[in-house]
Amino acid sequence: MTERVNRLGEFELIAKHFAPLAGKTPGAYGLKDDAAVLTPAAGHDLVLTTDAVVAGVHFFPSDPPATIAQKALRVNISDLAAKGATPRVYLLTLALPPGVDDAWFTAFASGLRRDQVRFGVTLVGGDTVATPGPLTISVTALGEVARGKMLLRGGAKAGDDIWVSGTIGDAALGLRVAKAEDVGLDKKHGASVLHRFRIPEPRWVLGRALVGVAHACLDVSDGLIADLGHMSEVSGVKIEVEAQTVPLSPAARSALTAGRIGLSDLLTGGDDYELAFSAPAARRHQLSALALTTKTKLSRVGRVFKGKGVVALDRQGAEIGFTRKGFAHF
Amino acid sequence: MTERVNRLGEFELIAKHFAPLAGKTPGAYGLKDDAAVLTPAAGHDLVLTTDAVVAGVHFFPSDPPATIAQKALRVNISDLAAKGATPRVYLLTLALPPGVDDAWFTAFASGLRRDQVRFGVTLVGGDTVATPGPLTISVTALGEVARGKMLLRGGAKAGDDIWVSGTIGDAALGLRVAKAEDVGLDKKHGASVLHRFRIPEPRWVLGRALVGVAHACLDVSDGLIADLGHMSEVSGVKIEVEAQTVPLSPAARSALTAGRIGLSDLLTGGDDYELAFSAPAARRHQLSALALTTKTKLSRVGRVFKGKGVVALDRQGAEIGFTRKGFAHF
Repeated sequence: MTERVNRLGEFELIAKHFAPLAGKTPGAYGLKDDAAVLTPAAGHDLVLTTDAVVAGVHFFPSDPPATIAQKALRVNISDLAAKGATPRVYLLTLALPPGVDDAWFTAFASGLRRDQVRFGVTLVGGDTVATPGPLTISVTALGEVARGKMLLRGGAKAGDDIWVSGTIGDAALGLRVAKAEDVGLDKKHGASVLHRFRIPEPRWVLGRALVGVAHACLDVSDGLIADLGHMSEVSGVKIEVEAQTVPLSPAARSALTAGRIGLSDLLTGGDDYELAFSAPAARRHQLSALALTTKTKLSRVGRVFKGKGVVALDRQGAEIGFTRKGFAHF
Repeated sequence: MTERVNRLGEFELIAKHFAPLAGKTPGAYGLKDDAAVLTPAAGHDLVLTTDAVVAGVHFFPSDPPATIAQKALRVNISDLAAKGATPRVYLLTLALPPGVDDAWFTAFASGLRRDQVRFGVTLVGGDTVATPGPLTISVTALGEVARGKMLLRGGAKAGDDIWVSGTIGDAALGLRVAKAEDVGLDKKHGASVLHRFRIPEPRWVLGRALVGVAHACLDVSDGLIADLGHMSEVSGVKIEVEAQTVPLSPAARSALTAGRIGLSDLLTGGDDYELAFSAPAARRHQLSALALTTKTKLSRVGRVFKGKGVVALDRQGAEIGFTRKGFAHF
């Protein structure tokens, strides 16, 4: 059994780098207690989600510590967004390999601080443990939603439209750029997709606005086709995607044109953290307006039918085959 | 970057081993959604805690999977107990090294199932990720406490008694037994302390009963002296422990008699997960009654004074020196 280092180190680490992130948040007790207390808002449910990221699996150990922190937090904020919840607090658990130094923690905490302001969340607790393995970051995030109103994966109904926010496939391109693969992008496009891979943009303002509008919602983390597969399965419906309507960024179009990547790579690429949702056709005008008020690009990419499974159709209406349907996390 | 294995494996794992632990719990959605929803009980606060354990650091990879699961869950239940909270739900994140097989998961889940019944909690969410490192288990547990009534570390007042539940130092002995050190125990005593190290006994019934009675409370995870040091620091008081009044098990007395371990090893040994709390002297009768109703051994082991720091006194009233004050987790 690995010798445990003196816990004093842990207390100093918390006092210096993490207690300031809790600040005077009521219930966090400056991270000096065993637990945090949260008084739920009247008439609201709490939404709970947890996601972990591992160095060498979900991010590169050499990535900037601030963006590692941001990604670990944002993948959780994105889950709250997909549920229509307003982010409120989070807990942070770090399994730390030897040799992580003070400068690393300073940069890591600065990334969290920036995102706390951006997403209106505060750190209220956590744990730090030693590991002989890679840096592992586990975040649990809690948000609030009006009682009984949480958006589900399982609500899609025949006749609904399928919508997605933003653009699809950029993070998959970014991963290739991070791995120094040549995907035929110029410097600017390369940098933009790398940024999307490193720091996803959770759509929580949109998610909140979709409460009472969308029938089903999720965030695209495994790849659009795989995630719509989850929606289809849990909802008990068939989903058809018209591939040419899936929104692509200029960078993704450029990579397609260069021929270094296929459309199916983009449709099945993970880590986009856009929202994919179903809504009745009667909501189209409302959603167009909502795209404006939330300043979020929304695209209608498919429809829901009775049946099961998800298919993507090309311009001629022929089914596109995939060698894999999604990004593999595990 | 390590290749991620197909996520299908994750979904099958969840469906077979973990979804049954969620069962039909409202808000868990059979672990098929991105998040869980929790409707807080009226007039209650939620208590949040998270603790992680790492193979080779907090448990031995060769430990029975059921007890690994139980320890990971129980260290969190113990934190809720120390806050006077009634356990309600938990989230489970596993970072899995290659080669963990189905039989291991079956045994692991059986340990969780047993403890879910015992502590009245259910699994409502989690995450599974691959790691090239050791098995890492992160649990976030949520409990409920009457609004504004959470027990804190920081409430100890001059004049209070210091109490502890159960017996102290057994888990530290159990760790030595696990490491095959000869601590002079016969087979029966050896087995009993090993059991205490592997499967702590969270005092949640006691913790709940201490709401409105104790001024300050925490669970003994770092070692009695170190943890009372935390209470002393956060409360801004001095704590004196009368070492000979600290409750020891027959096994611990036997190890002391054999001379293989000193009293200070027991007072600073970690992982006991007993509750240590302060309460006014006027509560002594009530606490004796409460020990009977909760079937929990309670011992008065010290007192609170103005000042700072924690000291342990021997029979002659002389201060006992410690080379270390607590168990090192990090």
